[in-house]
Amino acid sequence: MEDEIFPELDFQKRGGFIVTITQDIDTGEVLMVAYSNQESLKKALDMKQGIYWSTSRNELWHKGATSGNIQELVKVLYDCDGDALVFKVKPQGPACHTGERTCFYRTLWDNKAK
Amino acid sequence: MEDEIFPELDFQKRGGFIVTITQDIDTGEVLMVAYSNQESLKKALDMKQGIYWSTSRNELWHKGATSGNIQELVKVLYDCDGDALVFKVKPQGPACHTGERTCFYRTLWDNKAK
Repeated sequence: MEDEIFPELDFQKRGGFIVTITQDIDTGEVLMVAYSNQESLKKALDMKQGIYWSTSRNELWHKGATSGNIQELVKVLYDCDGDALVFKVKPQGPACHTGERTCFYRTLWDNKAK
Repeated sequence: MEDEIFPELDFQKRGGFIVTITQDIDTGEVLMVAYSNQESLKKALDMKQGIYWSTSRNELWHKGATSGNIQELVKVLYDCDGDALVFKVKPQGPACHTGERTCFYRTLWDNKAK
């Protein structure tokens, strides 16, 4: 049944979930990384918004449903072996729960700094 | 011992591996997604190149070691909960084994196309 909906994707490779990278379509910034399953992906495309599967809560995660910081979904790319997605979005507010625009707001290492 | 090397990161949350997004530092393009563990990350920073952990082969994966398509590592970002990385790189050749610049060369869905 899975293959009928998204034959391009391999959900089973990593236990039903596909790693999903959310990228700002205008700035190119990587905003966050989350997971999709069949159900959340179908919902994301239907609603044209950043909707994911929360692997910790094991439930649908509609980004911004409570905070208002929704992500307008513009484009979805998939990778060569069909086990990763890029959501290109227009974010209406910060992606990070800390209030930062992106979850990747800290630098671990910088070549120039060495 | 882990915490001594990268106290910012939580390797244990997903079984020793951290999802690692490789992004072209110049174009902003997401090139591929891979995994890091402590060993591969230490090696990547030491060699200043895109080095990962292959979860399928369960070994160090030095991108471009055989093909020559190495990735010069410029910057590493980490996310709010310390379980994901962005490698900002200057790629010397295609990231994808198909010969494409990026593994995300196919569109699953496009809002404009609907």
